[in-house]
Amino acid sequence: MIIVMKKTATDDEIKTIIAEIKDNDLKPMPLYGTERTVIAVIGDERILDKQHIKSMPGVSDAMLVLPPYKLVSRETKFEDTIVTVKDGIKIGGKEIQIMAGPCAVENYEFVSQAAKACKKSGAKILRGGAFKPRTGPYSFQGLGEEGLKILQQVGKEENMATVTEVLNPKDIELVAQYTDILQVGARNMQNFNLLEELGKVDKPVLLKRGMSAKIKEWLLAAEYIMSNGNPNVIMCERGIRTFEQEIRSTLALTSVPIIKKLSHLPIIVDPSHSAGKPYLIPPMAKAAIACGADGIIVEVHPKPEEALCDGQQALLPDIFDTMMQEIKPIAKVLGRVL
Amino acid sequence: MIIVMKKTATDDEIKTIIAEIKDNDLKPMPLYGTERTVIAVIGDERILDKQHIKSMPGVSDAMLVLPPYKLVSRETKFEDTIVTVKDGIKIGGKEIQIMAGPCAVENYEFVSQAAKACKKSGAKILRGGAFKPRTGPYSFQGLGEEGLKILQQVGKEENMATVTEVLNPKDIELVAQYTDILQVGARNMQNFNLLEELGKVDKPVLLKRGMSAKIKEWLLAAEYIMSNGNPNVIMCERGIRTFEQEIRSTLALTSVPIIKKLSHLPIIVDPSHSAGKPYLIPPMAKAAIACGADGIIVEVHPKPEEALCDGQQALLPDIFDTMMQEIKPIAKVLGRVL
Amino acid sequence: MIIVMKKTATDDEIKTIIAEIKDNDLKPMPLYGTERTVIAVIGDERILDKQHIKSMPGVSDAMLVLPPYKLVSRETKFEDTIVTVKDGIKIGGKEIQIMAGPCAVENYEFVSQAAKACKKSGAKILRGGAFKPRTGPYSFQGLGEEGLKILQQVGKEENMATVTEVLNPKDIELVAQYTDILQVGARNMQNFNLLEELGKVDKPVLLKRGMSAKIKEWLLAAEYIMSNGNPNVIMCERGIRTFEQEIRSTLALTSVPIIKKLSHLPIIVDPSHSAGKPYLIPPMAKAAIACGADGIIVEVHPKPEEALCDGQQALLPDIFDTMMQEIKPIAKVLGRVL
Amino acid sequence: MIIVMKKTATDDEIKTIIAEIKDNDLKPMPLYGTERTVIAVIGDERILDKQHIKSMPGVSDAMLVLPPYKLVSRETKFEDTIVTVKDGIKIGGKEIQIMAGPCAVENYEFVSQAAKACKKSGAKILRGGAFKPRTGPYSFQGLGEEGLKILQQVGKEENMATVTEVLNPKDIELVAQYTDILQVGARNMQNFNLLEELGKVDKPVLLKRGMSAKIKEWLLAAEYIMSNGNPNVIMCERGIRTFEQEIRSTLALTSVPIIKKLSHLPIIVDPSHSAGKPYLIPPMAKAAIACGADGIIVEVHPKPEEALCDGQQALLPDIFDTMMQEIKPIAKVLGRVL
Repeated sequence: MIIVMKKTATDDEIKTIIAEIKDNDLKPMPLYGTERTVIAVIGDERILDKQHIKSMPGVSDAMLVLPPYKLVSRETKFEDTIVTVKDGIKIGGKEIQIMAGPCAVENYEFVSQAAKACKKSGAKILRGGAFKPRTGPYSFQGLGEEGLKILQQVGKEENMATVTEVLNPKDIELVAQYTDILQVGARNMQNFNLLEELGKVDKPVLLKRGMSAKIKEWLLAAEYIMSNGNPNVIMCERGIRTFEQEIRSTLALTSVPIIKKLSHLPIIVDPSHSAGKPYLIPPMAKAAIACGADGIIVEVHPKPEEALCDGQQALLPDIFDTMMQEIKPIAKVLGRVL
Repeated sequence: MIIVMKKTATDDEIKTIIAEIKDNDLKPMPLYGTERTVIAVIGDERILDKQHIKSMPGVSDAMLVLPPYKLVSRETKFEDTIVTVKDGIKIGGKEIQIMAGPCAVENYEFVSQAAKACKKSGAKILRGGAFKPRTGPYSFQGLGEEGLKILQQVGKEENMATVTEVLNPKDIELVAQYTDILQVGARNMQNFNLLEELGKVDKPVLLKRGMSAKIKEWLLAAEYIMSNGNPNVIMCERGIRTFEQEIRSTLALTSVPIIKKLSHLPIIVDPSHSAGKPYLIPPMAKAAIACGADGIIVEVHPKPEEALCDGQQALLPDIFDTMMQEIKPIAKVLGRVL
Repeated sequence: MIIVMKKTATDDEIKTIIAEIKDNDLKPMPLYGTERTVIAVIGDERILDKQHIKSMPGVSDAMLVLPPYKLVSRETKFEDTIVTVKDGIKIGGKEIQIMAGPCAVENYEFVSQAAKACKKSGAKILRGGAFKPRTGPYSFQGLGEEGLKILQQVGKEENMATVTEVLNPKDIELVAQYTDILQVGARNMQNFNLLEELGKVDKPVLLKRGMSAKIKEWLLAAEYIMSNGNPNVIMCERGIRTFEQEIRSTLALTSVPIIKKLSHLPIIVDPSHSAGKPYLIPPMAKAAIACGADGIIVEVHPKPEEALCDGQQALLPDIFDTMMQEIKPIAKVLGRVL
Repeated sequence: MIIVMKKTATDDEIKTIIAEIKDNDLKPMPLYGTERTVIAVIGDERILDKQHIKSMPGVSDAMLVLPPYKLVSRETKFEDTIVTVKDGIKIGGKEIQIMAGPCAVENYEFVSQAAKACKKSGAKILRGGAFKPRTGPYSFQGLGEEGLKILQQVGKEENMATVTEVLNPKDIELVAQYTDILQVGARNMQNFNLLEELGKVDKPVLLKRGMSAKIKEWLLAAEYIMSNGNPNVIMCERGIRTFEQEIRSTLALTSVPIIKKLSHLPIIVDPSHSAGKPYLIPPMAKAAIACGADGIIVEVHPKPEEALCDGQQALLPDIFDTMMQEIKPIAKVLGRVL
């Protein structure tokens, strides 16, 4: 940590800071400049609370030199983490994984049709929501356990792994019983109780980026899960909220190479939720793979116009199939397989 | 709802939309323009799902004419809602209410000192966190029930009402047992399970605005609480996330008159969390009252430099007292009392 | 400047940085930590280019300790700058100044009516646009010199100072000939040629904040004007672009106390352009004064529904008068006069 | 246009709106709903000023059905615009174009070395700034005409077309004399005088997206150029300003397919300025091509650590060459050539 004192800081104030640093078993290194004093801290600065230091008398600013996360950092673990979802389905390795299926599980028929089509085109993981977070209280909220059962059944029939969202710490056990990957939605990225409890589960967690989450905060959310014992976290970029109004959110694809640089965790991209319009999904899926994503999660529905939830952003199976045919050679260019 | 068809929409596509509208017992009114067809919907359009309509073939866009919320709307209830917290402490009436106290409940001594000072300066509601949502897993997370007990005890001693945050649906009963107002933090504004459960409680809920929540989404979060049976919701503007880096978040005070226009619910302002620096708090508190807020929630700590949480944004008791003396005459100018 | 080296930085890379610092006549102070080396720079770091340093081999990050601006800084000049507009009209002193008038100068009649009303209610400075920046090429673009003449004439008749926008460096001389204050609009805040030329004029410049300008960038824009010779800069907060859609832009009032802290320059607030709706203007004007602004610039039009530009955000003269009556006692509470 | 009246609108207010519509030779179509009246406008609504209508008594809201731009719209011209830069160099056709070179023209040697390398790797257009917009007044501002001469000379030597930024309307003639493409920087996207004057030039214009420009505003900026007579506009996505702090700006690649849908104009991507760090540039360049961009503009410098401007985001020639080798097969997958 670098602590910048005010021009007007007194000797006593400087001494107090130095004492505080020593109290934490760290080594202070004061630099007496022409305009002001700067105190560098030698050692693992994460022991100090930056906000606390900034509130001390005479302090103008305090800057961290090390990132605030540890377990998720590539400095801690250099090799890529490869998450094993199920026999032979891995995320973060050479193979790119596609998660596809309807936004919400509405009935067996739709899920089954979607799954058959997705499987045929190359997807190995089936998505579908049983608990749906909806902005307003009057919208369809999902089928709950009934939906989980349908998802599990179709997953078995088509030999696909499954992923679904969990909203509430109390539902984790239930959801984990039926599905292979537990998803944390964007609105829950900082639901810390949920993250902690997911850290105690032995299934992979798909962690969507919050709508206004900085990359550092997103990594700290993953740190919550890892520090509670679960190393199998998959990051998922799904767009951030900006002033742009042509789309629901701005897909911030640069986060893919950034996460790869800062962390060893795999990262996939959700091009459906940010787009809000089907024609935008295939180009953004191709872009995601081109910039290094380990996979895609995408909404596919046999009859989007009858969907109870987000039909306007679901791909028809044949459009999905065309997209998959285009993704494959791009993956190959990057030395990946699909 | 106004449905704009594509230039290329076929007669069949238009007929399908018209049939869909009629199926919902609404009245379609097609307008055949020179460039394209527009279909207006007569009746309560909220029955229709805008996203569903937008996904139908031939549809270019669909716009809502009515807001998506009902119970929180001033069109539904014209008179201001006045929330009664406790004998004689009301929010949303002529009297402006000040909620003050430490960020987190750390020990009896600090809370008691802060409460005495706040009470003396005119605050009637004591704040203090027992469950703290922290960005990283290695920060102080609050004292839990122990903290609730301290808060309750000091509240009784000083004859103040109390407000504290609840993070998890399963903690609601516990928190409600000890405190007078249950707070939903910014990160939980779209934790819909939490909102639903708070709708079943008979204590007022303080609903902080999410860091990237549009005003419409914030009102829909309040609608979740009201539609589950609890009419006592207090809105709280606490700043939104923008590109600005001089402050933690951008206090969007214009939301005060906007909420007052769109809704009958009371609204208070939190100038502490957005500022991150004590010198910014008194001017923004004065501005909040000047633009019509029903109150302020502010952090006060007897020894900010020893605080375990957010000390850098807490006011010292004497600064708080000066601020209160400046707020009073401004309140009076607006015809309010403090 | 604090230069953080990569964990993997070699001794040679560290030596190169140290040499670079010495070449600039600054003193390097290397700190060999447990995890990495940090090099502090003693002296006026602004000589170094941060981006250049960051691009050097072995460098992980570089942080400035001093702000990048000098002349506008309160550390350079402690006393408030008071800008004299015209005989007895000063901005930044004890008296709060109100600038009011129509968005655009459309004809003599409207300007004259607006000016009479504004003067009567207490405004001493008349605003009105002769050159209008419009988002689309098909909108009314202002009357040009004809408009300047009308503004000047009405200003003389009502004994008011005048303020108008200048868009193009080549128009500065013309505009300066007719008006007392030259306004830089939000879209031109980083039109550096315009700023440089305004630095050579001996009239005050009203510098609106850019829609996505950080406070540091806004102060640097003022530094462009000051460093070219013109010390009479008035800052103007007018809202920033965020995700919120209920209003045109988010009025970021916290910038008022921040600018007052960082700089000696006066700052006023424009509550009209961010609001876009008249009912929002009086509360935000009151809030602006309450948090310490030195004045307000507001749109007033005798017949908003006939305005060619931004009629929907202009106040009617009687609403303006009521607002002024409410602002006065708030100004008094803050020890100001109006 | 769809005009939504207030619930409380009087018959007279409705009649006034209807008369206003008729006065503009458009056809009003009032719809008397159960909750409120809506008036649809049949004909080319762009004749009406939305803001003006919204300010009329009794009006609650007004929504446009048609986009506000015309000439740039794909509804006006269906076929892709292919911009001819110079003998055989076209943008927007089957061939992908790469613009590469140093941020600023600093001296002949650096530009020549960069150009040779870029040409060899496949770039046909040389970039380099002679007039540099810098946030602060104390940074290197470019060589001016001297720089233009160097750029032209190297362009001739290497048989490359050239592109450079123009900041000031008065410099257009000078810049057009030396270069093949005139660039409008992000800060000038709404410098309307500049856009108008560029509309009168017979050279292509590269129009960078403003840091906080909505897509609609960006297209309207292009409309300014086209409506003044110049049809050769090339759009350039370069990132938008968001809350994210890991990068300088958020590259919003979804704008590529959106612009392709809404407009016939070609669009390229600048991955350098948003990244700020070299390692991010190749993945984002690949992503840009994968989602359909017509080209890339990228900074290449033989000695980034000696660059006077933005060295930290320039690629070394060999990194650039590797990137080009990766882009080629991706272009081929999309049916493009490079």
